[in-house]
Amino acid sequence: MKLARFTHAGVTSIGKIEGDRIIDLAAILGRRGASMRALLTDFPTLKPQLEQTSAPSLPLSEVRLEAPIDDPQKFLAIGMNYKAHADEAAAAGIPTPKSQFWFNKQVSCITGPYDDVVAPKDSEQVDYEAELAFVIGKRCRHVRRENAREVIAGYMVCNDVTARDWQFRSPTYTLGKSFDTHGPVGPWLTTDDEIADPLALELSLTVNGEERQRSSTGDMIYNIYEQIEYLSTVMTLEPGDLITTGTPSGVGIALDKFLKPGDEVRVEISELGHICNRIVAEES
Amino acid sequence: MKLARFTHAGVTSIGKIEGDRIIDLAAILGRRGASMRALLTDFPTLKPQLEQTSAPSLPLSEVRLEAPIDDPQKFLAIGMNYKAHADEAAAAGIPTPKSQFWFNKQVSCITGPYDDVVAPKDSEQVDYEAELAFVIGKRCRHVRRENAREVIAGYMVCNDVTARDWQFRSPTYTLGKSFDTHGPVGPWLTTDDEIADPLALELSLTVNGEERQRSSTGDMIYNIYEQIEYLSTVMTLEPGDLITTGTPSGVGIALDKFLKPGDEVRVEISELGHICNRIVAEES
Repeated sequence: MKLARFTHAGVTSIGKIEGDRIIDLAAILGRRGASMRALLTDFPTLKPQLEQTSAPSLPLSEVRLEAPIDDPQKFLAIGMNYKAHADEAAAAGIPTPKSQFWFNKQVSCITGPYDDVVAPKDSEQVDYEAELAFVIGKRCRHVRRENAREVIAGYMVCNDVTARDWQFRSPTYTLGKSFDTHGPVGPWLTTDDEIADPLALELSLTVNGEERQRSSTGDMIYNIYEQIEYLSTVMTLEPGDLITTGTPSGVGIALDKFLKPGDEVRVEISELGHICNRIVAEES
Repeated sequence: MKLARFTHAGVTSIGKIEGDRIIDLAAILGRRGASMRALLTDFPTLKPQLEQTSAPSLPLSEVRLEAPIDDPQKFLAIGMNYKAHADEAAAAGIPTPKSQFWFNKQVSCITGPYDDVVAPKDSEQVDYEAELAFVIGKRCRHVRRENAREVIAGYMVCNDVTARDWQFRSPTYTLGKSFDTHGPVGPWLTTDDEIADPLALELSLTVNGEERQRSSTGDMIYNIYEQIEYLSTVMTLEPGDLITTGTPSGVGIALDKFLKPGDEVRVEISELGHICNRIVAEES
């Protein structure tokens, strides 16, 4: 299934994508409303109904797609997780980490797949990072990598937008990764059963049509199963937790090309669709 | 007001502390249930009712106090924010940061004021950090320090429990700060109107009755208003966001004394009460 959050006639709901139409799941979801976290918590019970429903549908062109999940309990991101990107980062003075390098983006930075991304008045170095994101479907702790796929609900495209000047102000990365609107995700959550091999997806990114990044999720240093094993050594993962898995080479800072108002950044991943966000200046 | 979350006869609610009794606010809160985030979101409207209610009360001794908030959207923490602690950290090889040094604890690590703290089987260096925590009461962005107090809902005691070996494995601190149960907070949320000056509270920490930390919140390098100004430059702060404000000197790593199963760690802050957590070994 492809699960989307969408707004139509002023109401936000969760829907199921079928071709170029979207089926509203509000009647099945009831009091869960438009919370993807609530849906995923009850997913095993709801799945048959969600699959079979033939509720009325709307043309996708008539709705506004929102972030497929906007209320996770965690939004974690791994850094320097593609060899060629770790090399370009090392050239910029960031040592290659010896173990998995995790930081948080704040949940408040999540935005929709086609929403504007705000270039903050307090940053001169807004940059893009094409990433595969996945969402946890099952409460878990101490998961071994060979069982890790069982806890994944599905996948999305993510742009891990970064204010580089703020990122490098602190070794924790926290603030440079967390400006409002700097976490566009979407266009929908493609459930795990629809993807043959999440380690063999092609991702690419363009700025105003010019290709800047292209790689395969197979090029990750720590694959998504190893990520789940490592994270769950430390913490309980919960349905809805959003995890983004690192970016390949070709980021703006390595090319000395930062984003500016008017730029359009498009990130695409095979089988998952694309997101596209325009950069706008923050109002002062 | 002192707002607590508590469990009685298997049901978790929010209550108001009066002396050694707790008044159940469930009837007023309705569908908000035991969510402190939901309460704080509607606090301006609810406040008169919450203040005046004379609903039935229970002796505090008959209830179990839970974390006053367990569902924030953010759990942020500042590091090296007391001069004497920054000095002891520098002695351990951590450079003193040139600007505010923020990291996340995961929301999943939050635990109650008297709950057990688990020493993970995967860490040899579990440590304590006495801290003042505050909770945001009002959605805000770009708040100036002189107006910052207006967005604070209230204050709690926090122990920023840390697995030092994991902390130093990555400059981001993320995982070393986020083991399950490593975020005890409480005993209740004391609303801002009850505190004369949050910059003049005395905090102290003992391990098995032996004092390890003692300082005043006036000794912070960046006070809570400067913290709100800096964070809100980057991100929208939301009702319920939990922010912990740094620890003074005397942490275990500086004394070469880590926590071990059986230890009791008590953190007290004047006007806010105390929390006390026993260290237990993780079951293997």
